[in-house]
Amino acid sequence: MLGTTMDFPLTLQHVFERGTQLFPNREIVTGGLGPRHRYTYREMGQRVHRLASAFQRLGLQPGERVATFGWNHYRHLEMYFAIPMQGAVLHTLNIRLFHDQLTYIVNHAADRFIVVDRSLLPVLQKLAPTFDTVEKLIVVDDGADCEVGDALDYEELLASGAEHFDFPRLDENTAAMMCYTSGTTDNPKGVAYSHRALTLHSFGASLADSLGVSQRDTVLAVVPMFHANAWGLPYASTLVGAKQVFPGNSMAAERVLELMQDEGVTLGAGVPTIWIGALPLLQAGKYDLSTVTRIACGGSAAPRGLIDAYDKLGLNIVHAWGMTEMSPLGSVSVPLVELDAADPAVRLDFKACQGMAVPGVEARVLDGDGQQVAWDGQTMGELIVRGPWVTATYYNDDRSAASFTSDGWFRTGDIVVMHPNGFIEIADRTKDVIKSGGEWISSVALENALMAHPKVQEAAVIGVPDERWSERPMACVVPRPEFKGTVTEEELSTFLAQQFAKWWLPEHYLFLVELPKTSVGKFDKKAMRAQYAQVSI
Amino acid sequence: MLGTTMDFPLTLQHVFERGTQLFPNREIVTGGLGPRHRYTYREMGQRVHRLASAFQRLGLQPGERVATFGWNHYRHLEMYFAIPMQGAVLHTLNIRLFHDQLTYIVNHAADRFIVVDRSLLPVLQKLAPTFDTVEKLIVVDDGADCEVGDALDYEELLASGAEHFDFPRLDENTAAMMCYTSGTTDNPKGVAYSHRALTLHSFGASLADSLGVSQRDTVLAVVPMFHANAWGLPYASTLVGAKQVFPGNSMAAERVLELMQDEGVTLGAGVPTIWIGALPLLQAGKYDLSTVTRIACGGSAAPRGLIDAYDKLGLNIVHAWGMTEMSPLGSVSVPLVELDAADPAVRLDFKACQGMAVPGVEARVLDGDGQQVAWDGQTMGELIVRGPWVTATYYNDDRSAASFTSDGWFRTGDIVVMHPNGFIEIADRTKDVIKSGGEWISSVALENALMAHPKVQEAAVIGVPDERWSERPMACVVPRPEFKGTVTEEELSTFLAQQFAKWWLPEHYLFLVELPKTSVGKFDKKAMRAQYAQVSI
Repeated sequence: MLGTTMDFPLTLQHVFERGTQLFPNREIVTGGLGPRHRYTYREMGQRVHRLASAFQRLGLQPGERVATFGWNHYRHLEMYFAIPMQGAVLHTLNIRLFHDQLTYIVNHAADRFIVVDRSLLPVLQKLAPTFDTVEKLIVVDDGADCEVGDALDYEELLASGAEHFDFPRLDENTAAMMCYTSGTTDNPKGVAYSHRALTLHSFGASLADSLGVSQRDTVLAVVPMFHANAWGLPYASTLVGAKQVFPGNSMAAERVLELMQDEGVTLGAGVPTIWIGALPLLQAGKYDLSTVTRIACGGSAAPRGLIDAYDKLGLNIVHAWGMTEMSPLGSVSVPLVELDAADPAVRLDFKACQGMAVPGVEARVLDGDGQQVAWDGQTMGELIVRGPWVTATYYNDDRSAASFTSDGWFRTGDIVVMHPNGFIEIADRTKDVIKSGGEWISSVALENALMAHPKVQEAAVIGVPDERWSERPMACVVPRPEFKGTVTEEELSTFLAQQFAKWWLPEHYLFLVELPKTSVGKFDKKAMRAQYAQVSI
Repeated sequence: MLGTTMDFPLTLQHVFERGTQLFPNREIVTGGLGPRHRYTYREMGQRVHRLASAFQRLGLQPGERVATFGWNHYRHLEMYFAIPMQGAVLHTLNIRLFHDQLTYIVNHAADRFIVVDRSLLPVLQKLAPTFDTVEKLIVVDDGADCEVGDALDYEELLASGAEHFDFPRLDENTAAMMCYTSGTTDNPKGVAYSHRALTLHSFGASLADSLGVSQRDTVLAVVPMFHANAWGLPYASTLVGAKQVFPGNSMAAERVLELMQDEGVTLGAGVPTIWIGALPLLQAGKYDLSTVTRIACGGSAAPRGLIDAYDKLGLNIVHAWGMTEMSPLGSVSVPLVELDAADPAVRLDFKACQGMAVPGVEARVLDGDGQQVAWDGQTMGELIVRGPWVTATYYNDDRSAASFTSDGWFRTGDIVVMHPNGFIEIADRTKDVIKSGGEWISSVALENALMAHPKVQEAAVIGVPDERWSERPMACVVPRPEFKGTVTEEELSTFLAQQFAKWWLPEHYLFLVELPKTSVGKFDKKAMRAQYAQVSI
């Protein structure tokens, strides 16, 4: 027997309609190197209609891909709605990818148009001859003086559209957005987010037990719109009518903090690197962030010391975890009511965990034999997940099978322990965990401990080949500027020995001025292994 | 092009799994006339498995209906999961319905089993001969001494089940629950909530911009589980792992307040009648409700004066609106950020509105010609809604067509004005609005104004036939006990004249000791019209 409920498709049209109808006067602000741009949801809505119409007149068909190559700004937001709501697919290109990967992705997705920020145009112009399917570049003028050539101008295109576009009723399983993983080891793999996934994800991000995005918020997504939908925040914010602030073409800490202060941001979101960079400025008391109620931090693990340092400034870091394959939200370190009365150190321990699977996401942890491990906070295993915003496969990719269990769960590739209270703590990536003498050493645990040392700014730990133990840990350490040249291997080793068994302690230390990072700002351990693992032994 | 997202069905199985897996130690407490019962989510989960297995062994087939006839308690919660999760349909019967309506409903839904609280058994035993399809009554022993006869005992049934039940994968559009409207004018009409509707509704209720149900909450649903799923709170609470408190077989104000105080309730939910009854006790300082962060109030409009009186006690009434046909949540009066700096009286005005359509629900207001009216806070029209938890039709009922627009929106039957900020304010029911000389008079506006008078406890306004004007308003007033016999028509009329045009003022006043109410506690204006409209003219 079926229910009598309406067949109401979960599409981005609902998200768009709610935001623009109920909150027409709320602001959308874009910062960056040029003058700050501001307009209202009403204007955004009007432009989305025109843009959709313009793309249709340009010949865009349902199902075709339009790529973007740009920063976080209001025109990117317009495309977030105009393209998917007409049944086409918005494909965000990561502006930091290697060039041959960009070529691979554009051709694999068979993008028909690419909309590119003028300041980023030179990269694409150079690659244009390698693109098989791209008909036209469309340029968003961000004030840069790069030559435009025969590319279309975004504003001219938009102006060519009609005032009203009649968005078609869509099947909620229609693809809305595409994104490729950052793929450090191989060609990137793509996922296509359905309308249903992104709409449900907007609900997920707005739950009280998740990021709690609300009409009371002013949201600054420092996380890029060119990767994993800026954590879905542009959609969640529109659904609930939050004021939106975009950093434009500058993610420099000073500009980000200035925006937060000026615009009264309540919810900031970004990778740890951003907040690590901002910390000294905040400690110097240069900015008033008294409107901020929480700072969502994810993308890679936020060090415990970072969370602690922000706590001391009265700034609440909310640790979140997700993946490109998950739209991306997976878990949030919510303030569990049982921990209210706990020792502050224990509370901080759990704040530094990846937290609980948000409603909508189911999580399990498997050992090497595919059996579920105990939720004891100690036993490591691989995290697998499923849910209505998790991908079932990679887009048109015969490498998919390895990433899914036989019963359809997504293998995250994260090695975790599950605490008895359901908190997930990431110990490592499957490819980064250090296998020493048949046991596992968590590179992440060592890194976090090192980064809690007062003389250390950043640290990454990699496994290097060892004849006797198979692998042994090596620490790559960036000292804080004032301790450059004075911090010693001995003091770090003594420091670590207070927390870890002797066989966990790094065998080698390497002091560097910076750590190589991937296109999305994570430590590039593949590069480190290639560069340093052989040299130092 | 379709997305690559998993086909993950939105069913109550996800709600159940999340609550029982992540929050096994959270409590579920049941009050009432007998001793308080308490157990954990873990035990609830174990019993749900046994119960599902027991029902299968009893021969229950997917799609078949199991009715309940009971108060709010933990066994009712067990059935909320065990029946729908095995693919059968839980049909909650309103224990306050007229007997011939109960017969109609049971036969119309073709219920196979009815699970009944022992204290309510006499009613059903009397009606049993009129039921066409019921094979067996199953009795939940609540300590009453009514004769059980040949009915099955709930606990014995449950004990006959296996420890584990393998819940089948369900289509998310499968019916999970059924409920019939309270139908004062005709035979009740039924809706069948799909798993998808109830799961999405659980997300809806847990949004920061809605009721914000969270793991931090202790939730007391005074709203009945026998009607409109207790506003979906048992499901939302389970999804997020909130502690749940049920009032059992007593909704008396003293017992409700005692439960709230003892169990540290943070979110209470009930119809205005409950909170009107509780007010004098709270004003007398008899209970410590310092843990309460909000009191959700809906079912019928909460008077402005009630909200104000609770505000003065430091208790935050959150006004919500919904309907049986909407699972039931439609709108919540959220604290709009623009109102933070407004005059307290203006803030109270909006708190007393029905609020904004929650994410998931789309709302429009139509005039008599089916055109959308201006959002000016003045123009009345009928509210129509749609969304993924709104019904598309009544269950197997040829009266459905009149309740839906030709393009599939549900006609709520509520006459509202829409404020420029998107706040819905209910002016009346289509059948209660008073048509006087070609203009509309809102009976609800007059009632609310009357109930704000210090000498008035309750007031209802109905239209009575008038030769010249077609209809004129008549006020039925229950004075506060201490003003019984002393409050006059003149002083109420003078009081109303400060706020309303002269032609709105009631033509007649009737002072009563109580107002007739429907089975769900709303003013029964149909009964009032039948009883009083003729007499007084």
